[in-house]
Amino acid sequence: MSRAVNIAIVGAGLVGSAFINSLQSLRSSSIAYNIILIARSSKALVSKQYTPLPLKTWSSDLAAASSASALSPGDLAAYLEKSPLPVILVDNTSNEALARVYPLFLQQGVSIATPNKKAFSSELGLWTAIFKAAANLTGTEKRGLVYHESTVGAGLPIISTLKDLIATGDEIVKIEGIVSGTLSYIFNEFSTAGEGEVKKFSEVVFKAKELGYTEPDPREDLNGLDVARKLTILARLSGLEVQSATSFPVQSLIPKALDSVEEVSEFLARLPEYDAETEELRSDAAAQGKVLRFVGKVDLGDGVSDRVKVGIEKYDGSHPFASLKGSDNVIAFYTKRYGKNPLIVQGAGAGADVTAMGVLADVIKIAERIAK
Amino acid sequence: MSRAVNIAIVGAGLVGSAFINSLQSLRSSSIAYNIILIARSSKALVSKQYTPLPLKTWSSDLAAASSASALSPGDLAAYLEKSPLPVILVDNTSNEALARVYPLFLQQGVSIATPNKKAFSSELGLWTAIFKAAANLTGTEKRGLVYHESTVGAGLPIISTLKDLIATGDEIVKIEGIVSGTLSYIFNEFSTAGEGEVKKFSEVVFKAKELGYTEPDPREDLNGLDVARKLTILARLSGLEVQSATSFPVQSLIPKALDSVEEVSEFLARLPEYDAETEELRSDAAAQGKVLRFVGKVDLGDGVSDRVKVGIEKYDGSHPFASLKGSDNVIAFYTKRYGKNPLIVQGAGAGADVTAMGVLADVIKIAERIAK
Repeated sequence: MSRAVNIAIVGAGLVGSAFINSLQSLRSSSIAYNIILIARSSKALVSKQYTPLPLKTWSSDLAAASSASALSPGDLAAYLEKSPLPVILVDNTSNEALARVYPLFLQQGVSIATPNKKAFSSELGLWTAIFKAAANLTGTEKRGLVYHESTVGAGLPIISTLKDLIATGDEIVKIEGIVSGTLSYIFNEFSTAGEGEVKKFSEVVFKAKELGYTEPDPREDLNGLDVARKLTILARLSGLEVQSATSFPVQSLIPKALDSVEEVSEFLARLPEYDAETEELRSDAAAQGKVLRFVGKVDLGDGVSDRVKVGIEKYDGSHPFASLKGSDNVIAFYTKRYGKNPLIVQGAGAGADVTAMGVLADVIKIAERIAK
Repeated sequence: MSRAVNIAIVGAGLVGSAFINSLQSLRSSSIAYNIILIARSSKALVSKQYTPLPLKTWSSDLAAASSASALSPGDLAAYLEKSPLPVILVDNTSNEALARVYPLFLQQGVSIATPNKKAFSSELGLWTAIFKAAANLTGTEKRGLVYHESTVGAGLPIISTLKDLIATGDEIVKIEGIVSGTLSYIFNEFSTAGEGEVKKFSEVVFKAKELGYTEPDPREDLNGLDVARKLTILARLSGLEVQSATSFPVQSLIPKALDSVEEVSEFLARLPEYDAETEELRSDAAAQGKVLRFVGKVDLGDGVSDRVKVGIEKYDGSHPFASLKGSDNVIAFYTKRYGKNPLIVQGAGAGADVTAMGVLADVIKIAERIAK
């Protein structure tokens, strides 16, 4: 008899759709992944008898579903609790309300795989509640597992590597990384190691927006909060009790004078007025043979005052961060065992396909532990 | 009730000792890891009742054990088969005879975690037998799991990343890597991107030997076979039916004229006679702004004639392989999902501590799946 798990998917946008496609094309799996629920905020397809949903037409079926089918987090919990097979909730949203219900799901034995950063980078109390409610694998108690690789660097093996280092007894000394694809692109274009053409910071931001690399409102990238959320997760996994993503220094790339601007269009129109500031930083660094990068750091070294911080840093032209390309992410783990040269992971850290891949890899890992 | 697994350790040298130390200092594990056997080729400590061995004095206890305690692979299989708890065999040797018994262990339900390359890079028949005997997780049959992260790049997340890429449905286009710490050091010193002092190839080899980076007989590194074994493993995981580690082109760094030399000392004494050859390669590359690296490649692209090959390649000064430091390994996965920029993993790929770390991470992953 083959083993199986039930899968409930919340969030059916780009990542959710890529996830469903990848799951359907899984090669040579000996575990059956039965999708029993696909929901978006306004409606849901639910298999009342917990049998697999027909998937050929899920997208149009979901679009045709009535708004009465929408599920509250409480409805979802009540439904999943009665699943006859072990069940994995795949939360492909960035919904904070759903994240707040994770402890309840986990206590009920529902496992979770998710790229939802909100669950792990909001106030420390939620983090603690989630991991207290999750399975500690001590046996008879039926608790859920929670995996969240894609919360940092999408499908890149960042969370799993950090967890392996810590679980096997290594000591984290420092973590340093470029973990925003948008800000990676902007700084890779703005501050290059070679002699290339000098671009204005605002022009690079406009180009990034044009290419679809930024949020519709680029200030959501420029304020550094996305990087701060990811650093909160890395710092907490490293053992630091970080209160929230705003409890440590985060440099915003939004000029102070534009803080009170409301409209995106006005912000963008006025951004070029501040190019002189960024150009001064860039040319000062270049004069020292260095480039600028927007970096997050977790530093557990002795006597460090800001253990977590996010902002612009300078790197030598020969540093791995200096030769980064496109919108790639890179993360360097400095540990006691690895010594002077860090363990480095690099590659695309954003995009629906690689995010869905990280979630699917987590789903497989959970299923191998819980499938029946 | 807490969960537990039994652990049988074969090989008690540098990696074995580092493994036992790390296992004893495991933090906050909710699984009990009971070491029931520690063996080297000539003797063994065995817990007849399958209760945990006292570990404080394992090293002197093992040294004091009589040679009558030595176990054949058959003895070991007979002992492990009767373990009342799920059992993981940790093979910290590079023993081919033991590797040949893996299919038997796996069929009996014994799981395996190992850095032993011989098991996965010998003739294709052994590879096939191992993975046919291993658990496919289809349910009732009691088969063992086999994990071997440390066979390539020690504790670096290389095997696990490749398996995740494939399991989630990505397509491998090309894998390119520097996977010998010794040859990484030699080429990083010999062929640098900057203007630095020019060194003779033989001098760099002598320095590497002096630092303990080479085997006692450096020809075992220079012949490329270690790299070929690792590439065999990566190629097979990528779906290629590689017959053996000598069934594809492997460039040897041993000058042809010295092939018949027997003594290490004579080989080393005569190596400088051939420095002109390597210097010509180096200076030709330098004239093009390139550096030399000793690289293994798996290429699944259309119309490629040698899908696997190992040898010297040239890279631009701005390529990530050019800025490699010390004896670091680096591996680049080019896949359909990751597109133009590869997923890169880099860091120390040799040494007892990081090798043992990779094995321990595997043991934890197996235990989370099989502990009772």
